[in-house]
Amino acid sequence: MARIVQKYGGTSVGDPERIKNVARRVKAVRDAGNQLVVVVSARAGVTNELIARAKAVCDHPSERELDQLLAVGEQETIALTAMALHGIGVDAVSYTGAQAGIVTDTVHTKARIRDINATAIEADLKAGKVVIVAGFQGINDEGQTTTLGRGGSDLTGIALAAAIKADKCEIYTDVDGVYTADPRVVQDAQKLNEISYDEMLELASSGSKVMQSRSVEFAKKYNVVFEVRSSFNQNPGTIVKEEVASMEQVVVRGVAVDKDQAKVVVSHLPDKPGTAAKVFRALADASIIVDMIVQNVGHQGVASLTFTVPATEAQKAEKVLAPVLAVLGGGQVEVQGQIAKLSVVGVGMKTHSGVAATLFSALAAAGINIELISTSEIKISVVLALARADEAANVAHAAFKLGKA
Amino acid sequence: MARIVQKYGGTSVGDPERIKNVARRVKAVRDAGNQLVVVVSARAGVTNELIARAKAVCDHPSERELDQLLAVGEQETIALTAMALHGIGVDAVSYTGAQAGIVTDTVHTKARIRDINATAIEADLKAGKVVIVAGFQGINDEGQTTTLGRGGSDLTGIALAAAIKADKCEIYTDVDGVYTADPRVVQDAQKLNEISYDEMLELASSGSKVMQSRSVEFAKKYNVVFEVRSSFNQNPGTIVKEEVASMEQVVVRGVAVDKDQAKVVVSHLPDKPGTAAKVFRALADASIIVDMIVQNVGHQGVASLTFTVPATEAQKAEKVLAPVLAVLGGGQVEVQGQIAKLSVVGVGMKTHSGVAATLFSALAAAGINIELISTSEIKISVVLALARADEAANVAHAAFKLGKA
Repeated sequence: MARIVQKYGGTSVGDPERIKNVARRVKAVRDAGNQLVVVVSARAGVTNELIARAKAVCDHPSERELDQLLAVGEQETIALTAMALHGIGVDAVSYTGAQAGIVTDTVHTKARIRDINATAIEADLKAGKVVIVAGFQGINDEGQTTTLGRGGSDLTGIALAAAIKADKCEIYTDVDGVYTADPRVVQDAQKLNEISYDEMLELASSGSKVMQSRSVEFAKKYNVVFEVRSSFNQNPGTIVKEEVASMEQVVVRGVAVDKDQAKVVVSHLPDKPGTAAKVFRALADASIIVDMIVQNVGHQGVASLTFTVPATEAQKAEKVLAPVLAVLGGGQVEVQGQIAKLSVVGVGMKTHSGVAATLFSALAAAGINIELISTSEIKISVVLALARADEAANVAHAAFKLGKA
Repeated sequence: MARIVQKYGGTSVGDPERIKNVARRVKAVRDAGNQLVVVVSARAGVTNELIARAKAVCDHPSERELDQLLAVGEQETIALTAMALHGIGVDAVSYTGAQAGIVTDTVHTKARIRDINATAIEADLKAGKVVIVAGFQGINDEGQTTTLGRGGSDLTGIALAAAIKADKCEIYTDVDGVYTADPRVVQDAQKLNEISYDEMLELASSGSKVMQSRSVEFAKKYNVVFEVRSSFNQNPGTIVKEEVASMEQVVVRGVAVDKDQAKVVVSHLPDKPGTAAKVFRALADASIIVDMIVQNVGHQGVASLTFTVPATEAQKAEKVLAPVLAVLGGGQVEVQGQIAKLSVVGVGMKTHSGVAATLFSALAAAGINIELISTSEIKISVVLALARADEAANVAHAAFKLGKA
């Protein structure tokens, strides 16, 4: 007998038929003699519906009331999932975040889990019940409903797995697992059997949308091994865990492309100490997330800074910088959309040289120009023209021999 | 400064515009210097939508999970109502039933309120906030979500008014108040300025659908004076309170018609002691609510029993009685639909004679046949043909001079 946490996302519980499909999967695992906690998201689309209703009554809804409103989505799904299980003879009970004892801090719309009091869940598991828990939501010390922000349901699943010391944690989604590249772009992309937390984190931050970084960070911190797999078939997925020795054989694990970035070039800046600090302080104060940064060497008294931001924040960045440049006494801001960031990720990179050389020469051979480069311990990212992004992904995928043998 | 509880029903919060209308009404009362608790229902229709989804995953949803599911409806409305108030500059905070401290027994789908811990509400009222509370729902001692059954939001409003010792309790609905008869049927029906709890109870049980009996019973028990009025205009409504001396001047307060009844005639029964008891025991065991009962005097060894049941239960009653008659050794069951029950109600009836005579002769003069008669202290009900029901209501209304002067 194992103790298993399963998490099903919004598309997996998108309509009654899919909820019944989830129930059948859960029953099979329960009938095999396992204890089971099932975390479910709101059905796909419901969050947007609710936000539209909020906007219809108030231009700027308060975050406390947004949480009260959005928690409705998962509360509906947990009840329906428990009912679907009852319908096929499985004893099950649904819990809201509050009922499940998921205590958070008081930061509405992006609360952090502080503690999980799993006493009630433990009792129900021991009584042979399947426990259905609402993802994404919790309760703070004042009894107010909170939500965990994007990717919150994954976080609920992983945190519950840690709290009840689950033997397995399975994150069900609409893809089969983590791939060496986006299979819609790179035809011979392979599903990975295993990936390390760090690689998964770098892939998430590089545009691979399987999971939000914070859930992976939480899993890494509490050493929760989890599997990403599809709820629509029985294929094994990708196991995400701490780095192991054998992993070092692999230089590059995968290729990710992020098409939602824009490049901002600040040129003709006075070349004096503190200039860059003032620019990035202004961006940070405006909560604009800056990704890649390159500063060239100043010459003839002027310098230039180039960086990338989420495409949706590019105009805001331009506006924020105007007064800063006025104070600095010079400089021009230019926003360039139509770019993409391509990243190659692998823990083996730490102890292998030549990855950068392989990537750059493969792209050069294909005539693809590199506009920016940045590196981390286990990642190399380059910015290139959006129009060539898919081609570049295929070139890099082939250069590191990531395709099916 | 007064302390006021307002309750808005599902049609009053049916869409964003109506929620904003409620918010404006609330603001006006708050701006006049009052403390305000606002109870809201789920928007009209949402409960049926949720039940349809439940039926799509499971033929017989468990009552615990139905409660978990249905509570979603009011949770959405409270958040939207609070947001609409924020949008017009009113400090407001929303509470689910659990957050409002509404503790119930453990009977799912028709829980009874046991206690209200209004500490949090009191604190928010003192801090100048408008408190929005989800109607219809509570929490039991085990932390499970419960719902209060039909008319539950009215009950929440009245119970909260008792708990916080409100000066006024206003039940907003889509009609202007309680009328001497249904204004769609009797053209010169008048809105009543006042009515006693007992009269209101008899009207509710006689087919006047303004409120469920249990909320009126609760108000009577805790002596909560409340006003039924419309959320769509500023007209004063009907004040419901304990009987007062002046009320005795009025013999008949109103006329109600219930068209959702069927008549069941059990004829050719062996005329021996205990026969009626066995018939009604079988109906009670099947949870069939029996309203009017008439038993004629037996002759030639056989008797007959006539009674009314909700039309939806008539077939069930017929089925339940078949084995009983077999045991009794005789009898025939016949169901007659197409009937209506007309009732005249008034506390003055207790000390006035002649009400029955007036009613019967007015109906006779109009050529309307009476099939069954039953009386209570403050009500006389007659069963007649459905086709003549509206005409009968007009005849009775005129006979007791209830129309506009």
